[in-house]
Amino acid sequence: MPRTKGDHEARRRDVSEAVWRVLAAHGFGGLTMRAVAAELGATTGLLTHYFRTKRDLVAYALDLLERRTAARPRRTAGPGVSAVRAALLDILPLTDEATDSNRVWVSSWDTALADPELGADHARKYARSRDKLRDLIAEAQRLGELSPGDPARIAAGAQAFVLGLVVQALLDAPAFPPHRQVELLDDHLAALVPTPGG
Amino acid sequence: MPRTKGDHEARRRDVSEAVWRVLAAHGFGGLTMRAVAAELGATTGLLTHYFRTKRDLVAYALDLLERRTAARPRRTAGPGVSAVRAALLDILPLTDEATDSNRVWVSSWDTALADPELGADHARKYARSRDKLRDLIAEAQRLGELSPGDPARIAAGAQAFVLGLVVQALLDAPAFPPHRQVELLDDHLAALVPTPGG
Repeated sequence: MPRTKGDHEARRRDVSEAVWRVLAAHGFGGLTMRAVAAELGATTGLLTHYFRTKRDLVAYALDLLERRTAARPRRTAGPGVSAVRAALLDILPLTDEATDSNRVWVSSWDTALADPELGADHARKYARSRDKLRDLIAEAQRLGELSPGDPARIAAGAQAFVLGLVVQALLDAPAFPPHRQVELLDDHLAALVPTPGG
Repeated sequence: MPRTKGDHEARRRDVSEAVWRVLAAHGFGGLTMRAVAAELGATTGLLTHYFRTKRDLVAYALDLLERRTAARPRRTAGPGVSAVRAALLDILPLTDEATDSNRVWVSSWDTALADPELGADHARKYARSRDKLRDLIAEAQRLGELSPGDPARIAAGAQAFVLGLVVQALLDAPAFPPHRQVELLDDHLAALVPTPGG
């Protein structure tokens, strides 16, 4: 029976799923042609139709991570400090899906630090994410909901805080259950809010 | 000429140095018997006298990371908020040596997340580090230099902030030079200090 375009698309989705499951379980350190083939129940020979080299597989995995992150559902929130809070909550590993995704992001840092090209690409991604946060913070300041101060600097601080909280929560889930993560985030935000009469 | 105990110790130090240089350049993802042997200018055969398996090599590298971290020079500071600030500054990649060490720590997270035993060990290490920070914070509160509040919670927030700042600074060194890192840390600490008349 001849293969149809539908078969091809379905197989591509299966390959993506298999790559994702390997990443979520073993990180980039465990991402090999053999592991993806095993997850897919296929031969490594078949995999070479999709990825000629290990580097192709890593590049595909990083792209998949970015697409999955871009496509994830996001909280909606009004403008001001609620929008800043929603954007930061969207990053935290508060659900199983967000935990998998963050586990892959943390793993990608090692990969990025080992490769100048990937490192530069990661630096650009995080800079874009800080810029978005800066704009939300500037808007909250205009509304009088956040204290004045350089919004880029406040964004860099908030991004650092949230990335570090991701690391802690992944390494020690029992000590950082979702409600604890939210509590710590709210502490960070509370410090940015004008004190009454201050 | 017979090998002396001194030769053996010197060779062990050479092996440690070679493992460290491979880790600092390539992370745990690039830590192989072959890479260490090449760095040492030796055969992989020689390496198997030191590490029987790849897992032995990884365990050795994690132990080396911990010993190097414990042995690094630390800032001295009086009690109170100065001691909290010094402990947090000690973590940041403000020197080449601290940058190498942090690069290896970030890489170790992927390794730890892929292995439940190593993961539990990492969780204990970070919990101990939070406990030390909590005690310094409690002392600063007793001196009236930090606002009241659960010191364990403030310590968890400060640790998250510093770990995330490490990640940012490693991925984008030009955007996070040492003076910028210190500025952001001081913003975080300023939010914990009682406001005059507050």
